[in-house]
Amino acid sequence: MTDQRTIDKLVIAALEEDAPWGDITSENLVPEIAFVRAHLVARESGVFSGQQLLESAFRLVDPETRIELHISDGEFFESGAVLATITGPARAILRAERIALNFAQRMSGIATLTARYVEEIQGTGARIVDTRKTTPGLRIIERQAVRDGGGHNHRTSLSDAVMVKDNHLAAVLAQGLGITEALLQMKQQLPHTTHIEVEVDRIDQIEAVLAAGIGTIMLDNFTNDELREGIRIVNGRAIVEASGGVNLDTVAEIARTGVDVISVGALTHSVRALDLGLDFE
Amino acid sequence: MTDQRTIDKLVIAALEEDAPWGDITSENLVPEIAFVRAHLVARESGVFSGQQLLESAFRLVDPETRIELHISDGEFFESGAVLATITGPARAILRAERIALNFAQRMSGIATLTARYVEEIQGTGARIVDTRKTTPGLRIIERQAVRDGGGHNHRTSLSDAVMVKDNHLAAVLAQGLGITEALLQMKQQLPHTTHIEVEVDRIDQIEAVLAAGIGTIMLDNFTNDELREGIRIVNGRAIVEASGGVNLDTVAEIARTGVDVISVGALTHSVRALDLGLDFE
Amino acid sequence: MTDQRTIDKLVIAALEEDAPWGDITSENLVPEIAFVRAHLVARESGVFSGQQLLESAFRLVDPETRIELHISDGEFFESGAVLATITGPARAILRAERIALNFAQRMSGIATLTARYVEEIQGTGARIVDTRKTTPGLRIIERQAVRDGGGHNHRTSLSDAVMVKDNHLAAVLAQGLGITEALLQMKQQLPHTTHIEVEVDRIDQIEAVLAAGIGTIMLDNFTNDELREGIRIVNGRAIVEASGGVNLDTVAEIARTGVDVISVGALTHSVRALDLGLDFE
Amino acid sequence: MTDQRTIDKLVIAALEEDAPWGDITSENLVPEIAFVRAHLVARESGVFSGQQLLESAFRLVDPETRIELHISDGEFFESGAVLATITGPARAILRAERIALNFAQRMSGIATLTARYVEEIQGTGARIVDTRKTTPGLRIIERQAVRDGGGHNHRTSLSDAVMVKDNHLAAVLAQGLGITEALLQMKQQLPHTTHIEVEVDRIDQIEAVLAAGIGTIMLDNFTNDELREGIRIVNGRAIVEASGGVNLDTVAEIARTGVDVISVGALTHSVRALDLGLDFE
Amino acid sequence: MTDQRTIDKLVIAALEEDAPWGDITSENLVPEIAFVRAHLVARESGVFSGQQLLESAFRLVDPETRIELHISDGEFFESGAVLATITGPARAILRAERIALNFAQRMSGIATLTARYVEEIQGTGARIVDTRKTTPGLRIIERQAVRDGGGHNHRTSLSDAVMVKDNHLAAVLAQGLGITEALLQMKQQLPHTTHIEVEVDRIDQIEAVLAAGIGTIMLDNFTNDELREGIRIVNGRAIVEASGGVNLDTVAEIARTGVDVISVGALTHSVRALDLGLDFE
Amino acid sequence: MTDQRTIDKLVIAALEEDAPWGDITSENLVPEIAFVRAHLVARESGVFSGQQLLESAFRLVDPETRIELHISDGEFFESGAVLATITGPARAILRAERIALNFAQRMSGIATLTARYVEEIQGTGARIVDTRKTTPGLRIIERQAVRDGGGHNHRTSLSDAVMVKDNHLAAVLAQGLGITEALLQMKQQLPHTTHIEVEVDRIDQIEAVLAAGIGTIMLDNFTNDELREGIRIVNGRAIVEASGGVNLDTVAEIARTGVDVISVGALTHSVRALDLGLDFE
Repeated sequence: MTDQRTIDKLVIAALEEDAPWGDITSENLVPEIAFVRAHLVARESGVFSGQQLLESAFRLVDPETRIELHISDGEFFESGAVLATITGPARAILRAERIALNFAQRMSGIATLTARYVEEIQGTGARIVDTRKTTPGLRIIERQAVRDGGGHNHRTSLSDAVMVKDNHLAAVLAQGLGITEALLQMKQQLPHTTHIEVEVDRIDQIEAVLAAGIGTIMLDNFTNDELREGIRIVNGRAIVEASGGVNLDTVAEIARTGVDVISVGALTHSVRALDLGLDFE
Repeated sequence: MTDQRTIDKLVIAALEEDAPWGDITSENLVPEIAFVRAHLVARESGVFSGQQLLESAFRLVDPETRIELHISDGEFFESGAVLATITGPARAILRAERIALNFAQRMSGIATLTARYVEEIQGTGARIVDTRKTTPGLRIIERQAVRDGGGHNHRTSLSDAVMVKDNHLAAVLAQGLGITEALLQMKQQLPHTTHIEVEVDRIDQIEAVLAAGIGTIMLDNFTNDELREGIRIVNGRAIVEASGGVNLDTVAEIARTGVDVISVGALTHSVRALDLGLDFE
Repeated sequence: MTDQRTIDKLVIAALEEDAPWGDITSENLVPEIAFVRAHLVARESGVFSGQQLLESAFRLVDPETRIELHISDGEFFESGAVLATITGPARAILRAERIALNFAQRMSGIATLTARYVEEIQGTGARIVDTRKTTPGLRIIERQAVRDGGGHNHRTSLSDAVMVKDNHLAAVLAQGLGITEALLQMKQQLPHTTHIEVEVDRIDQIEAVLAAGIGTIMLDNFTNDELREGIRIVNGRAIVEASGGVNLDTVAEIARTGVDVISVGALTHSVRALDLGLDFE
Repeated sequence: MTDQRTIDKLVIAALEEDAPWGDITSENLVPEIAFVRAHLVARESGVFSGQQLLESAFRLVDPETRIELHISDGEFFESGAVLATITGPARAILRAERIALNFAQRMSGIATLTARYVEEIQGTGARIVDTRKTTPGLRIIERQAVRDGGGHNHRTSLSDAVMVKDNHLAAVLAQGLGITEALLQMKQQLPHTTHIEVEVDRIDQIEAVLAAGIGTIMLDNFTNDELREGIRIVNGRAIVEASGGVNLDTVAEIARTGVDVISVGALTHSVRALDLGLDFE
Repeated sequence: MTDQRTIDKLVIAALEEDAPWGDITSENLVPEIAFVRAHLVARESGVFSGQQLLESAFRLVDPETRIELHISDGEFFESGAVLATITGPARAILRAERIALNFAQRMSGIATLTARYVEEIQGTGARIVDTRKTTPGLRIIERQAVRDGGGHNHRTSLSDAVMVKDNHLAAVLAQGLGITEALLQMKQQLPHTTHIEVEVDRIDQIEAVLAAGIGTIMLDNFTNDELREGIRIVNGRAIVEASGGVNLDTVAEIARTGVDVISVGALTHSVRALDLGLDFE
Repeated sequence: MTDQRTIDKLVIAALEEDAPWGDITSENLVPEIAFVRAHLVARESGVFSGQQLLESAFRLVDPETRIELHISDGEFFESGAVLATITGPARAILRAERIALNFAQRMSGIATLTARYVEEIQGTGARIVDTRKTTPGLRIIERQAVRDGGGHNHRTSLSDAVMVKDNHLAAVLAQGLGITEALLQMKQQLPHTTHIEVEVDRIDQIEAVLAAGIGTIMLDNFTNDELREGIRIVNGRAIVEASGGVNLDTVAEIARTGVDVISVGALTHSVRALDLGLDFE
């Protein structure tokens, strides 16, 4: 569940973007008293996400609309399934339709893709996580969609956890500091609740990083053999995350190396909207 | 060009979403005085879009950053091309990097896909246009990206042009009004500057619609033969738009039927982010 | 009807402007339990507009207030008529009174003036339309008031329709382009749904403009004879709008020339608030 | 002078209202490099107001525009006078023109009308003041315009001074309290810096009101004889304000009764925009 | 009572600051159906303030929570007293708890301290008032808390009353103007409803200030003997405010000099939060 | 350093709260051209904090003001020290003065108090941290002030780290789950970057909590002997935080028990503003 005020703000912004001064078609063509029933129908199978946004879109256009959901976030549906039934003033439903679909199709697209990754690694100890490659403005709901698809979230933002990447290390080393020393110094300033993750490109960097006592080590663009070797070296001293070159063909093998976390940018940066439609009775 | 204030608002919202209380990694690890140069590099070929957002992201994080663009919106680039060079404080560039990329990759993805559609219909009189299936909150820049790819825009929103769809007509007919009559009555209330587009599903609806004197007729899910027949009936009395079943395999043949406008929801509803990266020197 | 969220935003802004930290008179003088009934009374005759704003002002101050409207937007009333009855806590009604009146008096002023123009042209085929000379921040409700008075709206803003004026043409011609050529080039870039209106000052400009295939031609500051001549030349190839020198004395004669549209800036740029008052029982 | 941030907020809101997604005429017709000079010309005489808004409108659209003012707020100009010269990109000037005019015409209209009232009472000790009958959202600049016209402001809002009207008194008396007693009780709760003004309808109410030790007494709808009698009774114990039935024909005689303050709702509730135009070279 | 919309805005901002993307502890640990009852208990005695904020915090997190207040703003309570009982979903109460307490503890701290000052001056004619030394963003509720403690408010802001301080006078005198002259000139420009208060540091300044006919004279950092002498000179021609060196040890003696108003910055600039806690059943 | 946009937003809100429609004293009394120099002087010794807010307040009122800081955040100063020199238009400095002081006095008060706690535990391995008992709306700068005083921050909000308190555990146990089991289940859902802290009231709860593999254990209201015993049991398996009954008299002894973190609500919930003043030359 996402905070309802957050959901409503997103929906109101979308409604205003889609009709800054009213829906001139419906208002001038459809009688105010026309009342309809419509069905949200899946035109392909997938995993559902977007329940709160769907409900919010119709409610915020007109509190008189009634939406009956036949599915919950995170559930699988077949093509042809009726996911929800909406009744209310025709003008309101026509006004909210596109916004409701734009949200639900995108989120269900993310959940469905995530579910395919999760299924691939079934039985391993790894988890699929998202990245910061989200759509500007929609991170909070795209992260929800990843969870609805059975995935997990990585840190939310640059503010809530540390992720030291190669470019950070380069800037540090250019000052003449060693990696361990720099990480220890940073830890001394951070809240004790801040998780520290460090990315390494080469196996020989692992020891220096672990010497600083960090939470997660990310092995970036390692081959599966290198991953196994890295995990052996880490030996439980930190969570191990694999990153780079992850796709539906490679993820299962990566998971089987024993990594704890596999991050997949494609979950959110290249979303195919799931095909959902609103059929009027 | 999009209004700069609009661009800046989007970028500020994205920056705040990505770091509600600072970039704790850089602030605690990278010296304030570290200064770097980085290159925006294409990891695949495509059509560029997002220049204003790119510049805005770095400038709004720190006005001291300098960004030199080596390409303009709408231009084609090869894989490996250096699209821009950014110099400035390391902290600022690391802070803005992800936001700049999230915008530019998405917009260039849209421009690149649009350009492929446009290329397919080269030599015909048709134009490729977008739809309202845009990402909530980003419509204005996604429309810009479509134009950068050589496409055209459809109406912006429910407020600025009329689009009568099957569901509207159903609601109208249920009141016992004829199509022509209903359209004429609506025209009487609308500003004289409002363009009216009407969607028809069957050839036999065309005459009743044209009788009301409208601007565009949309032939929805017509076969190419039906399109040709429809165009023959319309005979220049309205702009003809084709919609439904449009993809890169079918679009050329559709264009050759002689339609004026082809709308493609996939331009914006299912965007694959183009692979761009920031390489630090 | 205007979108309720838009109405409420305007009313809240007005209420906050009128009492940034409370109504110190009522709060310190009038008992919290005092309950009153008040009547909105017309001190002169006119056409009513502002129903939504009136209701919103009292409801947003205190949902316990009840407002019973005895008139609807667009209806005529005589001096002395009781337009609405409001009951509720005295503090709430005293707090909302001025804001409710400021909106309703202004909108009814516009509707009443519009109705006088509309009455003047009764029986002709012309329509009275507004302009962009609206009060900053209130355009959406002033356009509603024009409609309530029986008038029509022109384009909403610079974004939703093209209006080429003399200054635009001057800038174009300074580049060495011909009018027809420049208009055709512009059309090629605009959405197919965008209406194009072009202003001309002289009869000999009409053909060049029409050659580009536009939607509306505005004949600016033409004498009635020139208007008749212009209409003869246009001959149904575009909507004809008359502008300039329009007032209650001249409008009937202008309408009888056969123009389609007459735009009147005075409808909104010089509003005399209608005299309405709130009488407490 | 009004706070610049307040001015800019009003102008940005007006610019966005007038072009939510750009000025499609100029952007598609006028070359980006076209550069023009334009003159703000008075088409009738009056008193100028709106300097800050004028400058802000052009600067906020494009900081490259230059505006040279040939007049200052509060100064008189003849018909035909050139009030300002603006140079800059043609697109920017065409974009800002209407907003700049909408503000300056309205404010100069208010200043000009105020100046006529002020002139009428020249030589008396009275001052002309505004009321809360201002345009929703524009109170702060309409009050500035009144000052530019030589008038004075009344209280700003319900929050910063007390004004006890007949409806307040009715509610108080209905509780069985005497006027003096109720006013004294209220004074006991208010900040010592709060000015208290009380409206009376009849001469016999004056003593009870003054007995509470208030700042201003408003004599509402008094004849000039009654005003004189009231002033005699007040005898310097409070500021005396006249209200009701004030217009350009009556104001001089009212002022000569010896009142201190004359409030005129018409200054802001029924504004005729002064005729100003932008002439391009 | 403070305007409910103002209260709710403050609470929403605080809730968002305290959980920008949800309460991850409760959401992942506490079952959605868990329902609890909790008591707001005083861990020390004091005067209560913050009722509206308390109710708002729980209601805005979840309208299903019920809060029963056992005390009203401005009432005294003993240590151990149960001030309120809240029932509702455990998640909601845990989410709102800290915000509700942060507001109520601070406001009750202010009310309690104010009440101690008020008690000290019992029986004198003086009033205790606050200053502009309030917490940025919270002035409106801190002023409410002062009233709840039995104190009074001074002017709200720089906009609603004049306060001439030594630095203003220095700037004036540097221009070669006399005090009386400068004050008279200022009065001429101000609304007749604006209260003027002038601060003096020395007894010999009093006459020049009073000569301008002002509302309040502030005697800054006067000894009690000087205060008595100042009051004698003022002799009822203005309200007298004492300021500077006021604390719980000195305030009674200052009040006994006969001053009307004593302003105390410490009421709001150095608040000790009262110890209140939420005990779950 | 705090993000400048965040600082500026706080300052603008405070400036608007303090003068919604201008500083009527200065604007009507102080000549626009008056130019002054003023010194920020410490009236007592302390640790400075608030540099960004100070600079922002003067710059945002008028970019022409110049502020020269003679001290940096986190530095100690003696009573009488001149902390900064500001030059600029008198009106601007008088307008910004109170806001600048309200921020700087509060933040320096927090930094100074924090420094006293930090000094007390000098030589131990413990750190002093803040809590969520911050002023609504000001958390981000109050946390900055704690760091400026040599303290550390705890988690920022309910969103970025888990803190399981007694009330959470009660709700969990009421469902029939064991502590270890419940914590493990929660961990399974959380991002791998989320730090988990659990509060225990009794020594016998420690093992069950540690069995779930958490980051920090908070020993709440333990005696120093119990703390030592708890630390012995934890034995490096988690960070140990002490909480409850911490004040300047007890903190040194608590730190000497060997705890890692000591949280002190009083750092921010009961701030005494440091006495700073602005002296005009």
